Order: sequence, then C-alpha cells, then structure tokens
Amino acid sequence: MTHTATEADIKAVVDRVNEIGLKTELSRGEERTLVGVIGGNAYAYKEAFSHLNAIHEIIPITKPFKLASREFRPLNTVVDVGGVKIGGDEVVMMAGPCSVEGEDMLLETARHVAAQGATILRGGAFKPRTSPYSFQGLGEAALKMMALARDETGLKVVTEVVAPGDVELVARYADILQLGTRNMQNYALLQEAGRSGKPVLLKRGMSSTIEEWLLAAEYILSQGNRDVILCERGIRTFETSTRFTLDLNAVPLARELSHLPIIVDPSQATGRWSLVRPLALAAVAAGAHGLIIEVHPTPNQALSDGAQSLDFENFDRLMEDLRRLLGAMSRQLA
Amino acid sequence: MTHTATEADIKAVVDRVNEIGLKTELSRGEERTLVGVIGGNAYAYKEAFSHLNAIHEIIPITKPFKLASREFRPLNTVVDVGGVKIGGDEVVMMAGPCSVEGEDMLLETARHVAAQGATILRGGAFKPRTSPYSFQGLGEAALKMMALARDETGLKVVTEVVAPGDVELVARYADILQLGTRNMQNYALLQEAGRSGKPVLLKRGMSSTIEEWLLAAEYILSQGNRDVILCERGIRTFETSTRFTLDLNAVPLARELSHLPIIVDPSQATGRWSLVRPLALAAVAAGAHGLIIEVHPTPNQALSDGAQSLDFENFDRLMEDLRRLLGAMSRQLA
Amino acid sequence: MTHTATEADIKAVVDRVNEIGLKTELSRGEERTLVGVIGGNAYAYKEAFSHLNAIHEIIPITKPFKLASREFRPLNTVVDVGGVKIGGDEVVMMAGPCSVEGEDMLLETARHVAAQGATILRGGAFKPRTSPYSFQGLGEAALKMMALARDETGLKVVTEVVAPGDVELVARYADILQLGTRNMQNYALLQEAGRSGKPVLLKRGMSSTIEEWLLAAEYILSQGNRDVILCERGIRTFETSTRFTLDLNAVPLARELSHLPIIVDPSQATGRWSLVRPLALAAVAAGAHGLIIEVHPTPNQALSDGAQSLDFENFDRLMEDLRRLLGAMSRQLA
Amino acid sequence: MTHTATEADIKAVVDRVNEIGLKTELSRGEERTLVGVIGGNAYAYKEAFSHLNAIHEIIPITKPFKLASREFRPLNTVVDVGGVKIGGDEVVMMAGPCSVEGEDMLLETARHVAAQGATILRGGAFKPRTSPYSFQGLGEAALKMMALARDETGLKVVTEVVAPGDVELVARYADILQLGTRNMQNYALLQEAGRSGKPVLLKRGMSSTIEEWLLAAEYILSQGNRDVILCERGIRTFETSTRFTLDLNAVPLARELSHLPIIVDPSQATGRWSLVRPLALAAVAAGAHGLIIEVHPTPNQALSDGAQSLDFENFDRLMEDLRRLLGAMSRQLA
Repeated sequence: MTHTATEADIKAVVDRVNEIGLKTELSRGEERTLVGVIGGNAYAYKEAFSHLNAIHEIIPITKPFKLASREFRPLNTVVDVGGVKIGGDEVVMMAGPCSVEGEDMLLETARHVAAQGATILRGGAFKPRTSPYSFQGLGEAALKMMALARDETGLKVVTEVVAPGDVELVARYADILQLGTRNMQNYALLQEAGRSGKPVLLKRGMSSTIEEWLLAAEYILSQGNRDVILCERGIRTFETSTRFTLDLNAVPLARELSHLPIIVDPSQATGRWSLVRPLALAAVAAGAHGLIIEVHPTPNQALSDGAQSLDFENFDRLMEDLRRLLGAMSRQLA
Repeated sequence: MTHTATEADIKAVVDRVNEIGLKTELSRGEERTLVGVIGGNAYAYKEAFSHLNAIHEIIPITKPFKLASREFRPLNTVVDVGGVKIGGDEVVMMAGPCSVEGEDMLLETARHVAAQGATILRGGAFKPRTSPYSFQGLGEAALKMMALARDETGLKVVTEVVAPGDVELVARYADILQLGTRNMQNYALLQEAGRSGKPVLLKRGMSSTIEEWLLAAEYILSQGNRDVILCERGIRTFETSTRFTLDLNAVPLARELSHLPIIVDPSQATGRWSLVRPLALAAVAAGAHGLIIEVHPTPNQALSDGAQSLDFENFDRLMEDLRRLLGAMSRQLA
Repeated sequence: MTHTATEADIKAVVDRVNEIGLKTELSRGEERTLVGVIGGNAYAYKEAFSHLNAIHEIIPITKPFKLASREFRPLNTVVDVGGVKIGGDEVVMMAGPCSVEGEDMLLETARHVAAQGATILRGGAFKPRTSPYSFQGLGEAALKMMALARDETGLKVVTEVVAPGDVELVARYADILQLGTRNMQNYALLQEAGRSGKPVLLKRGMSSTIEEWLLAAEYILSQGNRDVILCERGIRTFETSTRFTLDLNAVPLARELSHLPIIVDPSQATGRWSLVRPLALAAVAAGAHGLIIEVHPTPNQALSDGAQSLDFENFDRLMEDLRRLLGAMSRQLA
Repeated sequence: MTHTATEADIKAVVDRVNEIGLKTELSRGEERTLVGVIGGNAYAYKEAFSHLNAIHEIIPITKPFKLASREFRPLNTVVDVGGVKIGGDEVVMMAGPCSVEGEDMLLETARHVAAQGATILRGGAFKPRTSPYSFQGLGEAALKMMALARDETGLKVVTEVVAPGDVELVARYADILQLGTRNMQNYALLQEAGRSGKPVLLKRGMSSTIEEWLLAAEYILSQGNRDVILCERGIRTFETSTRFTLDLNAVPLARELSHLPIIVDPSQATGRWSLVRPLALAAVAAGAHGLIIEVHPTPNQALSDGAQSLDFENFDRLMEDLRRLLGAMSRQLA
C-alpha cells in the first residue's frame, strides 16, 4: 500500500481478496503496510486489484510456472529420442543444413556429420521467413528426404513445424518437432505439439524472458507431454554487429529454475560462421546439454543462412575442439 | 570488399552475381572496391555471397518490401469498414473491454463508448495469454455477443484471431480481424487472414523493427488483400516501469515509408491506465489515424488487463480532450 | 524464503537484519514465508542478505529516491531561469544549433527563434562525440558567442558541460547547465553541477530506467540544488530506423513519480528532421513542460547532426502548430 | 539516391562532396544511383549531406576506428603489466572484492587468490553507485591498502577511476586503471587516462555497441597510449532475471575487428554468484584473454555486490575447473 493508505483502503483490498476466495496476511512497516495474498493460484488474479485505492505496487512472489519448475521436479528430465539421451551427462550434437535444398546435399551433409559424431540431423522443410519473397522451404518433399537420410545414416531427425495444421504431417516424419523463435508464443501450435506425443525442441523467443520461455514450455507440458527440450538461440538487443545476442546466462539459470534439458544454437545467435565455433564451445562450458549447428557442403551456395553455416572443414574442427573440451570436463558426446 | 581483396577475389564475387542472373557495377575507392549488385530481387540472394573471400560487408540498398511501400503506392490507403473510413483525415476511435467477459458488461460498454463517439468496438474472444493458467477468453460465445452489440449500437467489430484454423469462424462475426503482437510473424496466420477478404488490423511485434512489420503486412497484401491497418502497441525495451515502451517515432515514420493507415494502442503500450489519456493524445498529435483503447465498466473486476483499462469517467475525459485536440488540428472523429 | 526454508534459515535472516539494526515482520503463506525488512534505509543493505540460505528473492518495496519523489514534495517544482518559468502551466521552447559553429550562424539562429517565440537558446560548445575524429566544439569561444547572443536577443542560454573541471567555466556564461545522456551517471559531474548554483538540465541516459534517472537527479538535489529539469531524449532499443526511440511514456510517468519539470528533445530522439515536428507536438500533448529543438540556418552545412536539425521554415511551421495545440489545451508558450 | 532522384539532385550531391575535398564515384543501378564518397576521413562528414534532396540513405563503408582496428595492426597487442602478459596465449585471472572494505579483508582475499593462481588484484576504491545513498568506497585509504597487498603478495593492482581529476592519484597506486561501464563515453576521463602512461582496462558501456566500444578505445589510443585492455561485462537488455546479459559474441568478434586483448567480467554480467563459474569457463572457451572475478571472504557481509561475489570455496572450484579447461585447450594461466 502507499504510505498514505487509510485503514479503509487496506480493508477494501482485504475484502476484495476474500471475495475472490484467497486469504491475506498483513505486515505493517514503518512507512507502509504490506498485504500478502495467499492461495494456490493468486497470480492469475493479479489484475483484480489494480483499480483499488492506495495500492503502491503488486509484486508476484510465487513463480507462475509449475510443471516446468525445478521445485516441482527436482531431478533433471532426460528426453530419450530413440536411444539418444538429451539432458543427462552426455552432450548431443544436432547438425545439418538450415534448409533442405535437395536430396544430394542433404545426404552428403548427413553422412558427414554422422561420421563426425552428430546423432541428430537438423534441416528445415517449412521455413518461417521475414520476407514473403524469400525461399520458404520444400515442405513435405523435404520431410521425405530427411526420413531417407535417417534410414541411411541412423541419425534422428529434428525439423520445424510452423502451423498447427502441419503438426500431424511433420510428426509422421520427424523424431523431434522444433518450434521456432517466432512461434514461441503461438499457443495453438504449442498445444498441438504438446498433443503430438513427440519430443518438442522449444526455441526461446527472440524477445522472451526466461520466465516467458518456461511458461511456453508449460503450455506443452500441461498437455501431458513431458519431453520438452529448451533451446537458447540468441535474443534481440541494440547490438547490430551480430544477428542476435547469444544469452549464455540463460543456460545455467534455466538449469537452476527448471528440470528440462537445454541446448544452444550458436549459428542463429551469431549469424556469422566465424563466431560459431567459439560460441559452441562456450555454450558447452556453460553447461548446455547439446548444440544445434548449421552445416552446409557449400555455404556460399546456400538458399538460406549461408553466412552462418559451417562448411565440413570448420565443422570437423569444431568437433575436434569439442571432444577435447568434453574430455577436460569428464563428459562425452551422446 | 576488404582492403586486402585481390582481383581474383573481386572476380569471384562478380562471377557469382552473374551466375544468379543479376548484374554488377564496380566502384573503386582509395581503400576499397565496392561491388554493386543490380536486379529486381537482389535482396533475396544476399546470403549467396557470404562465404566468398574478402567480402567486407553486404549492405542492402533497396528496401525489401514493395506492396506496402509508399514508393509503390504514393497515395494513402483508406480502409472502408462498412462506412467507417480509416486512413483519411478523420480519426477513428476503437474502444471496448480487453476480454469479453459477458453479455451485460459488453453491451453496457458498447453503448457507452458509442454514445461518446467511438465507431468500432474492440473485445477479446480468443486471448493469447503468457500463462496457460490465465483466462483464455470465451471463444465463439464472445463473438456472438460482439455481433449482438453491433446490431444494437451500430458499432463495427474488431477482435483477435490467434490460429489459422479460426480465421473463417472469426471472419463470420468480425468486421476487422486483429492479428496480435505475438503473432506478427505467424506466417500461416498472416496468409490465412490475407485470404479472408476482411480488413486486417496488424499489431506490431513487440520486438519487431518497422521494416519487419511492413514485411508482415506484405504477407497479407501479397494475398490480394489491400485492407491492412497497422497498429503500434509498444515495443519491448530495458525499461520495466511501464509494460512496454510506446514507440511514437513509428507513427510518422511508417507514414513516410508506407501508404497504409496506422493507429495506436496506448493501453497495451503503457500497462497503466493513468498513462493512457496523455499517450492517446500524443499519438494523435504525432499523426495517428486512430486509437484503440481498453474500456471496462469496473476495471477492478476485469478478468484481464484491468490495470490498463479506463473506466467510463476517464474514457469520457479522454474523448473530451481528444475532440479539443482534433479541433486545433482541423481534424475530426470518424 | 524458498518453500523448503527451515525455521533455522528464517532465523538466520532475521538475525542478520537485527545485526544491521533494522527490524523484521514475518508473514507466513501457504507455500512460503515472507520476511519484511523495516527501517529508513533498508534498500542500501539489500546485498547483505544475498548469501544466506533459502532466500527465494529480495524485493525492494520503498523507492530508492527521496528528494526527487512526488511523495517528498507533492507540488510541482517550477524552475525560474531569469524570469522564464519551467515546470508550471506554460510550455517553454529551447531552440538553437546542435553545435555553435560561428558567431554569424548563431546570431542569425538566435534572432530567428526568438522572433518565433523561443525563450532559451541551445547550442553546443563542448561536444561529446562518439569518435575522436569528429568535430568536438569550439569551447570557450562558443560560450562567448552564446553570451553575446543572449545580450542581443534576451534569450537565456543552455549549454552542455562534459567534465567536472569545466563546470565553473561554463557556469560563468550559461543560465542552465546541460548534462548529456552519456554523462547521466558521471557522478563527479552531477555533484559538481549540483554545487554550481545553476539550474541543471538532466538528460536521460540512453539506457537508463526512469528510476535511475531520478536517482541521478537525486545526486544533484542532495547537493542542495533544487533546480533540476528532466529531459527525455530517446532510449536505445533494437529499432535501427530511428537514431533512438523516444519514450513518451516517461513524460506522464515522471510527472507521477516526481515533482520535477520534464521537457523533451525530439531532435536527438529521432535523428531525422522530418519526424521532429510530429514528435514535438506529441510530447506537449503528453504533458511535457517544454521542448528543446535543433535549428540550423542551413542544416546541410551543419558540422554535427544536420540530419536532425530543422531549417527556419520547418521551425516556423512547428511553432505555428504548437501554438494551435496549446490553444486547444488552454496552455501557452512561456 | 531515391529512385526519383533527378540528374540535378545527383549533381548537387557530387558538388557537395567535392566542396568538402572528397571524391565521388557513381554506380547506376536499375532502380537507383549510388554515389560512392571516397577519401580518408569521409565518415566525419556524413552529416554534411543530410539535407540534400533525393538522398535515400547514407551508409558508412569504412569502419570509423583506425588505431584499434585489426586492419591497422594485424598482430595481437600484448599488454605487459610488470611482467604479467595480457593478450597472448596465457589467460590472466584478476580477482578480489567488489569494494575494498578494510585492510584485513583485502589482505585475506589477496593472499587467497594469489595462492590459487590469480596474478592481478581487483578492488574498488572509488565506486560509482546508482544511488547517492549507497556506499561510495574508501577512496585513497583503499588505494593504500591495495598497494600494501601488492607489496605483500606480488599481485598487480587494478582499480577504477571515476573522474579526470583523480587519474593522477589513482595512477600513483594502481598498475592498471579501470574505466567503468558508466564512464565508457566520459571522454574527458578517457583522454586523461590515455595520457597517464598506465595500461587501461576499458569496460564496455552497458548499452554500447562493439563499434562504440572500439571508438572509446580509440580515444585512449589516440593519446599515444597503446596499452588498452577491453572488458566485456554484460549489456542491458529486456531480460530482468539476470543483472545484465553477458555478450560472449563480443569476444571472438572483438578479436576479429581489433588487435586489443579482451577479458570478461562474469560477476557484473550475471549479478548472481551461482552463474559466475559456468560463465567464466564459457568466456575462456570463447577465447577471452582473461577474467575479472569478484571474491569476498564472507559475501553475505559485503557492503556492495555480495550477491555476485564468490566465497573462497567457490573461487577455488572455479580455478580448478579453469585449469582443466585450459589444459584441454593447450593454454595456461598467466
């Protein structure tokens, strides 16, 4: 309450709390009185008090997410993708082209990254592009190529789904459904992905707080789907010399707040291939459970995001450094 | 090109440009050579050069949107919503509750705002909420109440649609489809709304640049729908004392760059009802074609966003000030 | 406290509070216990608790500024600059060149803006420039020209001071000392300006919250100087199409939180002259006590910030629109 | 130029360029003509063109910093601080309390961190604090304690200077002058530090781009001081769950753009001690030349920043992990 609040003001707040069915507890300080609001779901009623007199500020004490919280589930969730474990001691490498541009380039890339130790193949079939005039992906044809690459290499497949109506189609081919940064608050899509029965890779919205990200995970978890993998991919800031700002603070902090596994995408987060290797190593040093990296046989021919794709030589160099780093940390590749 | 670029490096870039089917023009400076890339759609190929040697930077010169640009259509677009004109000399007032909570409160609000000079009724039927545990809206029941309020008051109806699969349903009841800030880059939804034949109110993404916003408009326009209304509703910044930061720079700038009408939502942008009136007046002074304002008969009972809703008394005060301001600017209410 | 906090954890916090000399008040909820910390200066000790066990979060309830707060001084402060009143019902216009480039251009500008109704002349003598190779201002020579312009036109003079060692020099010539955005947290400079006896125009730091801004004002006020004028000049955000994002939410909010006058600088905030007039009008509609505008006889010859300077014709057009707007609001020019 | 530019418009621009003493080169595209401006210092004249007709956009091609650029000096700068080398293959550890609070706590901390492998002692004597009511540091008394700790432990000393008038005093005691985030664009201070003859640790402004940071370094370098050490310490973003967002993209990118050494401060950047160790390791994995870490014997008694200070046990754990990481990277501690 403000320092000018009268007893009548305080009583009005207490009455309103009781009206809603919650309880109060008063704490009277030298300058102000504090009204504690107690009850399971107090947060949802936050706005019901906003027009009462002499309220100084309303401060939520309980975090608004439950199923995603470490308090709810103290042990790490380990997502099992056909035998590849994400969220445990091992570090998983997901790699592949930004977009699937054709069968040959996809197979060539899949064979290469598998030979180097990747266990999951990434590749875009449906691409959400800022401009309607940019290349939008090959759609189901690309999904079929991904499935073919899985059959040949044993890699599991992760690919993005951009509309609720496509979830069933994509789930038929993919092992993990990816929800992209622009769709982190596309709630219809979150719920549909939650109902799909498939593990979901949930990219952080480019301007989402960690709390909002965990609330988006809550949408999926509350559909009964426990297999959510968080992915930090850079946030939007005032800095323009990189495409986004990779927020590695989020890695240990999400691990404190939540039991869900977290991986990092340094390709999207930097937008410059020359920064991908150092930031990939940094992500693992900060505690990430895995990486997702854009790799292309000939990045300068790529139809999307060539600037941030590694060629095979640079990918190999990353894998070599990564193995050395994991050795020092007594961890290993999944 | 970097200042160490060789003739071979430059030739490689020129060859790649020609390979794509574009033309080049060289400009040799004291320190650097500049390679101009010329052709209708050069922007879309930006990434095809990223891995060539000795490129210092790739800078787009042509803006990537066309149909939304002032260069493409020099005269203002005026959207006609059943006789209410948006984008011309008149200023339109859209008002109503954040969420439709019931028939009585909606009708009471509609009657009041209509009597004060509003011509369009806002109200949420489908609410995209950050938490899955918050109130999500009454759905089709709310749409029916909106239609009823239209029949009684003559107000036109604007309401949000959050999933492509709901576009047809919402279009059956609404006069304007609203696309919210979290869905500005939900491309499936943009395209579906574009095909609906209804005017679309396109809210700016909370972390979208003006260019990205106009590109989102381009998605709708490129479906053959010319009736797009832009809505500035605050962007996300480091400032936490208001819910968002209202970016009024965007109003005259969008008017320079585009022919589309632009309105402003000071309720969402501030999150505090006491700031709504001054910012609403500021928006109109800056050149906005209209306002969208949250009004509630008893804001402290609201199920969502009560803190930013005006009660009737404060709405009346806003309308009075607005009329005076418009008089000084030789403009009037739509 | 966290929901796993033991009685011993709670006792440890209470003991630590008592050790510092403050008091506690416990509030036990269903899930958590809240420890209220009570005492005049509790905020300053916030960090003393950070390492105790089982603390969930430390939330400040009292605002950390006092002298600048509306609670401390309920009535508006009106700063009197040799008869020009800032902070009352009248709106003050400060205008002039970004940099003082010479006597002729300064006098020409001063005469013009005075004739149009400005009462304060702005002009940079010491320029803080991002690059050491940019024009840095004419120094004391410029101050003398400003004094000359004052003698001739009766305009009062505002100019920036960038180093504590220059305060005395600048105070000899200026009627108002301007502290720029890059120096808002230059505490040595704030204190020296506070001791100067001159009114201080305190620009908001480009990445400062409103709370930090009022705390910077507190540095000046706590030196016994009551004549502080706040100036919103745009904040840094992700948007790059304007130089900064003008935060007009700050105008009514600073007026709620503080008794200090607040003016707006739309030239710096937009970086584009074509946006200056609409945003200037918006600022006044939002409740600003004044404007500071860059005006140059020939903007395309300016040594700094020509892109955001109005020429005389556009300044005249602004003054005309401003007078009309003030008429509608029953206010007038200072 | 805009696509409506006439030959006269283009000629006006060319004439203005020649008037300034620079040269032009025209490139005519399908939609637009591009006017290249060529000459050593073209950037400084950017604003001189802003008011000419039909200019679409002015885009700087040459980076505005020179002395700090990798192009100017291809080999890494190694700063030698009394035998401790910063910028080469070794990684330097700077550690100590946020503020020097007394002789005992300083000596105790210095002995501990030296024994663990730190070579430079940090500690604040002059503290720039957001609130005038927070602890501001012990001033010269603290400098004397730092010198004493150096004598006893052999550690070199880094400490912040906040005002140009204090540079001489601080330089008498310190081995490295630290310029803090709030002073990165305090140009009087940059220049005075540049003239001091001491190495300068230049923290990135919390809202400064990498380019602005290198331009701030340029201010120091242009005084003839070559010993500048960059320090990334977190930037301000919309995320509020950490104090700042550590921008590790900046580490490899600054190394590409500049020859200057770069270290990282994870204590300031996270504001939470539990995140310091993972981010410190991440910084080194990303290529940082060193770390600066806040360490306190009893963080819960600290007068400032206790929440982000490591106690001895956690510092030891960091040093152990760091050694293992460096081993994997074939690097070692300085």
